[in-house]
Amino acid sequence: MGLWFTEKQTENFGITAKVNRTYHTEQTDFQKLDMVETAEWGNMLLLDDMVMTTEKDEFVYHEMVAHVPLFTHPNPKHVLVVGGGDGGVIREVLKHKSVEKAVLVEIDGKVIEYSKKYLPSIAGELDNPRVEVRVADGFMHIAESEKAYDVIMVDSTEPVGPAVNLFTRGFYSGIAKALKDDGIFVAQTDNPWFKSDLIRQVYKDVAEIFPVTKLYTANIPTYPSGLWTFTLGSKIHDPLKVKEERFFELDTKYYTSSLHFASFVLPKFVEDLTKK
Amino acid sequence: MGLWFTEKQTENFGITAKVNRTYHTEQTDFQKLDMVETAEWGNMLLLDDMVMTTEKDEFVYHEMVAHVPLFTHPNPKHVLVVGGGDGGVIREVLKHKSVEKAVLVEIDGKVIEYSKKYLPSIAGELDNPRVEVRVADGFMHIAESEKAYDVIMVDSTEPVGPAVNLFTRGFYSGIAKALKDDGIFVAQTDNPWFKSDLIRQVYKDVAEIFPVTKLYTANIPTYPSGLWTFTLGSKIHDPLKVKEERFFELDTKYYTSSLHFASFVLPKFVEDLTKK
Amino acid sequence: MGLWFTEKQTENFGITAKVNRTYHTEQTDFQKLDMVETAEWGNMLLLDDMVMTTEKDEFVYHEMVAHVPLFTHPNPKHVLVVGGGDGGVIREVLKHKSVEKAVLVEIDGKVIEYSKKYLPSIAGELDNPRVEVRVADGFMHIAESEKAYDVIMVDSTEPVGPAVNLFTRGFYSGIAKALKDDGIFVAQTDNPWFKSDLIRQVYKDVAEIFPVTKLYTANIPTYPSGLWTFTLGSKIHDPLKVKEERFFELDTKYYTSSLHFASFVLPKFVEDLTKK
Amino acid sequence: MGLWFTEKQTENFGITAKVNRTYHTEQTDFQKLDMVETAEWGNMLLLDDMVMTTEKDEFVYHEMVAHVPLFTHPNPKHVLVVGGGDGGVIREVLKHKSVEKAVLVEIDGKVIEYSKKYLPSIAGELDNPRVEVRVADGFMHIAESEKAYDVIMVDSTEPVGPAVNLFTRGFYSGIAKALKDDGIFVAQTDNPWFKSDLIRQVYKDVAEIFPVTKLYTANIPTYPSGLWTFTLGSKIHDPLKVKEERFFELDTKYYTSSLHFASFVLPKFVEDLTKK
Repeated sequence: MGLWFTEKQTENFGITAKVNRTYHTEQTDFQKLDMVETAEWGNMLLLDDMVMTTEKDEFVYHEMVAHVPLFTHPNPKHVLVVGGGDGGVIREVLKHKSVEKAVLVEIDGKVIEYSKKYLPSIAGELDNPRVEVRVADGFMHIAESEKAYDVIMVDSTEPVGPAVNLFTRGFYSGIAKALKDDGIFVAQTDNPWFKSDLIRQVYKDVAEIFPVTKLYTANIPTYPSGLWTFTLGSKIHDPLKVKEERFFELDTKYYTSSLHFASFVLPKFVEDLTKK
Repeated sequence: MGLWFTEKQTENFGITAKVNRTYHTEQTDFQKLDMVETAEWGNMLLLDDMVMTTEKDEFVYHEMVAHVPLFTHPNPKHVLVVGGGDGGVIREVLKHKSVEKAVLVEIDGKVIEYSKKYLPSIAGELDNPRVEVRVADGFMHIAESEKAYDVIMVDSTEPVGPAVNLFTRGFYSGIAKALKDDGIFVAQTDNPWFKSDLIRQVYKDVAEIFPVTKLYTANIPTYPSGLWTFTLGSKIHDPLKVKEERFFELDTKYYTSSLHFASFVLPKFVEDLTKK
Repeated sequence: MGLWFTEKQTENFGITAKVNRTYHTEQTDFQKLDMVETAEWGNMLLLDDMVMTTEKDEFVYHEMVAHVPLFTHPNPKHVLVVGGGDGGVIREVLKHKSVEKAVLVEIDGKVIEYSKKYLPSIAGELDNPRVEVRVADGFMHIAESEKAYDVIMVDSTEPVGPAVNLFTRGFYSGIAKALKDDGIFVAQTDNPWFKSDLIRQVYKDVAEIFPVTKLYTANIPTYPSGLWTFTLGSKIHDPLKVKEERFFELDTKYYTSSLHFASFVLPKFVEDLTKK
Repeated sequence: MGLWFTEKQTENFGITAKVNRTYHTEQTDFQKLDMVETAEWGNMLLLDDMVMTTEKDEFVYHEMVAHVPLFTHPNPKHVLVVGGGDGGVIREVLKHKSVEKAVLVEIDGKVIEYSKKYLPSIAGELDNPRVEVRVADGFMHIAESEKAYDVIMVDSTEPVGPAVNLFTRGFYSGIAKALKDDGIFVAQTDNPWFKSDLIRQVYKDVAEIFPVTKLYTANIPTYPSGLWTFTLGSKIHDPLKVKEERFFELDTKYYTSSLHFASFVLPKFVEDLTKK
């Protein structure tokens, strides 16, 4: 057997992965941080014993958080990423030349530090001059921003620990305020197999604030159930009405312009979470 | 901790599930069969220590195997299910009133016996008069059939053990022969994260035989990576050209007519497996 | 991998055993009871997810609980076993022909029922006419007994759940009262690696009541650390002064008359637990 | 859950320990070496995914390998340790002032290097001037030595990998030759629960060469079954006939002069391995 990392994704189910070595382990001011080398997934970042990202499957999450709202917006210039200290979303955001400034607000500087060191293929663009990295509370940053961003992406951990405020109606109201008049936001909203109540609640909360609210999904094998949801709230632009000419060639491994639309077509039991 | 079932889906990665009890465990003539009660997934059928089906997530697989080809065909009357002794695909097939006869050819009678006993919500239609159950080798049955079926579904285990013949070019040729002139077949073809070579090979083999060859996916949380592929081969009918009026209301939890089309829109790295 | 039972013997350490099947699992009035078949240890009784006994190594515990005090007493006639519903201690007690009556007081009748069914080689003597089985609270039985027994054996679970009262000074006082004037008692007192405080406390408590107090050990591989302790309290008879002629041939696999004495020779760090 | 190390001590049984971090992991020329920090046992050395030693329980093994033969010999001056690169046996050997020279022959220099770095409380005496460390094949060293040592200790890994030669009759003959005329040797010989055949064979082989052959045991919680055996072969001196005045005060946590004798009193099923 040897060394294995096991994440209980629910009380009664989980995943288990062979670990070659730990690079770094630390109780930061906010959470337990482990950077490990796995045999299956390459280097892996764990926060509070939950898989955050891995070298092998990170592209799915980061592409799908970034490109869906960025292509939905006709001309995104100012982008905010809340959380996302591993830098993966930022890397994807920068693939859009229209983006002049991408601000990353990550509460835990250690996530940034060790992602740069051990996940260079993910964090490699954090020092790009178009990026501004702030180690600060995203909730507060949102509260202090007004009509500042075209697109806001919430790349948070589960709604426990430091991210608990990021799944509240108040936070979504703050985001609406922080967005420009045609702004768009997207948040990762966990999986429909074990967290259906959360998805339903977030969808309801967001839909009360944003005229256009949609759920889309992607397959992330190291996340619970393998099926991840993202909730998108938009003041004007509809992700399903993006014109073909809006898309341009991107170097991606998961996202395509066809998948942009298909990812909004939900399995029936997931679609049901968005009704009533 | 207590009792947990762990499936190593690869040498270095797996899932683990709390088990309340084992109902039955047996080395059949073909494989190790375990029927267990899990805390997360309800009753679960294991063959050779691999998850075959669970009460909680079975609907995805069974709906997606059955309804995609059945709606693609304009008027399916004779259907063959190879494998599938748990009865889940048959249950879905019978939702199509056009189907006059559904033949199930399962090599291991014990799978049928214990599915009836412990998975009644899945196996409940195996005694339906429109169903003919044969405990026999599917490979031989195919070899002996000619222009007999409108739709053939291959619901096999992994390409090890009794199912090894079911992933060969010869088998697909046999299927073509066993199908009527406008017949369609679909086979489960594992996941693109760990078995990309298999998918690529099967797709290539099928495409050499069937004019219309397509790959589609579904999310099955207890299967490796959570993203499952199905390869569809059709002599004439194109699953992407099904007319809206062909669909009728179905009692499903995953499949919808919109998802019918969206499930063929592949993530880029999966789409790449179907090229060249 | 398949099905494995894991007992966390401490928060950070445990054992893990392959399980072939569960025979019975039940929440009794007192505890969770599981009877399982393991590949390494044969049938195994679990209470609250802790290993109680296994077919393969049960002889160590049962022989060492029974024979050490029974040979220490010159002529044991009346014996009480508190707990011990699996019947293993009783089986060993009956090997002493001097014993006219062995009373078993087990609080959980289900332990007796399922041990008889699935551990017949252990529980096989529970219906012996020299045995009286009572399903009752051992603590109360002790409280109501006076100068009734020559030897009392406390074969309890860990000091949690139903057995919590059996590790108190009050209980040992009760035992002294329930014993005849030259009575002896022995209790299992866990292991010195993880439970040194418990051993120290019990030893101190017993030594305040019994003129002769001794600790002895045995190797039980499925119990935490593999080194188990037993605390013996005696009003008169000293286990280290048993005459050679007192011993007679016994059919045992662990206990010998030489080991009788050697088992009281403690590793230094264990001996230290018996000193003030 | 997080990170756990699991050693399958048999195909169907094992131990599992929480790991805080890996300090070093390397495929050396001889074996896979991992140095990890565990939550229960402190720092732990693993070779080929088997526990070699831990900070918390190392004292048992090292004291029992060293002091039993060293006190049996009336005046040990030249001592050889074969294997034992962690330095624990050497540390104990040096507690005997009569020892003028202790030679350590360890085949894998990496074991020494990383034990010095991460197990300083164990390896701390390896630089003592009375110690000579050789990175070499112990089997060859023995073959080249003649009447050179008073006491030889074989502190090897399991009889797989680099240690396979150390469990052969030829090796024991070599040891006899390498010992002086009243020399003594001891080897760790695994556990009687899972490796009874090995113990029986080694005992038989040694007894054909050494007039005095004895088996003794100690409790090592992180080794399979918790009960470890040591086989002692002696040309003249009998460990059971050591005079009381031979012993002197030692700073130990497990070994005592009483336990010296008691450790040779075997459980019946272990004693049986030494007969016929």
